[in-house]
Amino acid sequence: MRSKSKSPGEFELIERLVKGLRMSPRTLLGPGDDCAILAPSRAAQLFTIDSMLEDVHFRLTWGSPEKLGAKSLAVNLSDIAAMGGRPTACVINLAVREGLDARFFDRLYAGIKRVARRYATDVVGGNITRGDRLAITVALLGEASRGVTRRDLARAGDDIFVTGTVGDSAAGLAVLDGKLRARGAAREFLIERHLNPTPRIEAGLALAKIHPTPAAIDISDGLLQDLGHILDRSRVGAEIDAASIPVSPAYRAAMGDDLSLALGGGEDYELLFCTRPGHAEQSLTRTLRVPVHRIGRIIKRRATIVRGMDGETAPKLRGWDQLRAHT
Amino acid sequence: MRSKSKSPGEFELIERLVKGLRMSPRTLLGPGDDCAILAPSRAAQLFTIDSMLEDVHFRLTWGSPEKLGAKSLAVNLSDIAAMGGRPTACVINLAVREGLDARFFDRLYAGIKRVARRYATDVVGGNITRGDRLAITVALLGEASRGVTRRDLARAGDDIFVTGTVGDSAAGLAVLDGKLRARGAAREFLIERHLNPTPRIEAGLALAKIHPTPAAIDISDGLLQDLGHILDRSRVGAEIDAASIPVSPAYRAAMGDDLSLALGGGEDYELLFCTRPGHAEQSLTRTLRVPVHRIGRIIKRRATIVRGMDGETAPKLRGWDQLRAHT
Repeated sequence: MRSKSKSPGEFELIERLVKGLRMSPRTLLGPGDDCAILAPSRAAQLFTIDSMLEDVHFRLTWGSPEKLGAKSLAVNLSDIAAMGGRPTACVINLAVREGLDARFFDRLYAGIKRVARRYATDVVGGNITRGDRLAITVALLGEASRGVTRRDLARAGDDIFVTGTVGDSAAGLAVLDGKLRARGAAREFLIERHLNPTPRIEAGLALAKIHPTPAAIDISDGLLQDLGHILDRSRVGAEIDAASIPVSPAYRAAMGDDLSLALGGGEDYELLFCTRPGHAEQSLTRTLRVPVHRIGRIIKRRATIVRGMDGETAPKLRGWDQLRAHT
Repeated sequence: MRSKSKSPGEFELIERLVKGLRMSPRTLLGPGDDCAILAPSRAAQLFTIDSMLEDVHFRLTWGSPEKLGAKSLAVNLSDIAAMGGRPTACVINLAVREGLDARFFDRLYAGIKRVARRYATDVVGGNITRGDRLAITVALLGEASRGVTRRDLARAGDDIFVTGTVGDSAAGLAVLDGKLRARGAAREFLIERHLNPTPRIEAGLALAKIHPTPAAIDISDGLLQDLGHILDRSRVGAEIDAASIPVSPAYRAAMGDDLSLALGGGEDYELLFCTRPGHAEQSLTRTLRVPVHRIGRIIKRRATIVRGMDGETAPKLRGWDQLRAHT
């Protein structure tokens, strides 16, 4: 049994990883003390935490350490995007295990640093602990916009939209796991969507400018399950048109007409949002700078109705039971 | 392989744990959305993260789930204390494993909630993930005082002080591990000091009011190793008087004259700090509301000299090699 005290080797790894980190003027003191020091924030702040665990959420054989690092930050950024905020600073807890050398962590951190730079987020501190599997836990702060796209803002009559395409990430995971066959460019696309998701920060910021402020969530647990969170918090229901769910050509190639992963698969990190009627797909696509599709509308009755899907598909969907619970 | 998507059971556990959490007016939105929302901070902010991992940092057989929860937050609070700040809000990532039931997590969270209330810290959000061992990772925000007791503020001629007694926690860990014998009240005291450390928040706030602002650190890695961090960052050395290291009667009873755990053992979460000469132990004890002892002084020469310790003890100390490196 070890105490929480660090070994010289752990300190050396920390020193190594924080090298070359650049800080914005918001960060008054970066890594190297007991805490980081951040300048006062004039706006309200967003605060979130998420974790990726080896052999639970990823395998090292699937992709490069850089991509793993990038994704570990991206999934947190997606939570800031879902609230319409701008990320500012993060701290990272690494559980490290035997068999991973300093070069591996250099590459992991190269991925983290790349995404941090891309989204103007300072990596202001961290902690390293020993474990028996790699775990990357990121806590992220962001600045809220004047409008915060919360889950509880959906109203009956709202249109429901989703950015990008859904189901790709779950299909990519199934391909990596050997449970789904895909070939060539489709295979690569789906895997890339799973390993290298894009947090919709700019789209979230654009959403937060719409009046009245839309309800929004990022699709991490699957479209129907995440929609369910909006419905629960807003105390409304939804009618979804299966035919309008946007799926990619790669998804079609691998899954055909089966929408189970598009509706029930997680980790797309696209935004699902609800606005008062009157916003066209085209104008939203321009404003959010990402393809936007209308997939249904919010209804008063607290149920989730998926139109155009046969009765056999529905029960197989992850998250479906939970949604049925409030029918 | 699972995706990061949560199961209904995981959502239920989250809902269960956040029940009864009380928020200060600083927290505009607590758990239940993609991020928590915090009011703008007028002061500079402190930001830190720390983690406790089953069978690496603790065993469940050692103590109650309540104490484990309490400690997981306390070790983070100690980092805020070391900078002289006031904790405000935290988010918690739990990795859960098979074999731990909802009642266990209720008790774990009861400990977290107790410490959170005691130190006026809002638990504003969290995340649950599956793992093969329990891991509790806490990211904590605090408000900085006007003076921030950083590690790089020590100057030659400063007196070096420490709060409370040192070595108890490491001795308690050795007792729990069966590597050290202690009996009766001494045994209980040492174990309690390991399982239930007190973050020195009030002492840190009092320290931050002293002019010029003292250098400070909390003793998590061992007195000599943590002193080494101050010396490194401040580019100075230190002369420590072994005879003045404050140890408890329980430590004496178990360890006799052996100071190795007092100097090299971690997790005391006491504060080590350096002030310009002229502060007496007694007045500091009054101001900080915790016993304070002078243990040495800062010197210009970048070395750590421990007076009154025989040559045999020194090489056995953890952290000693690292400190010798800049002799």
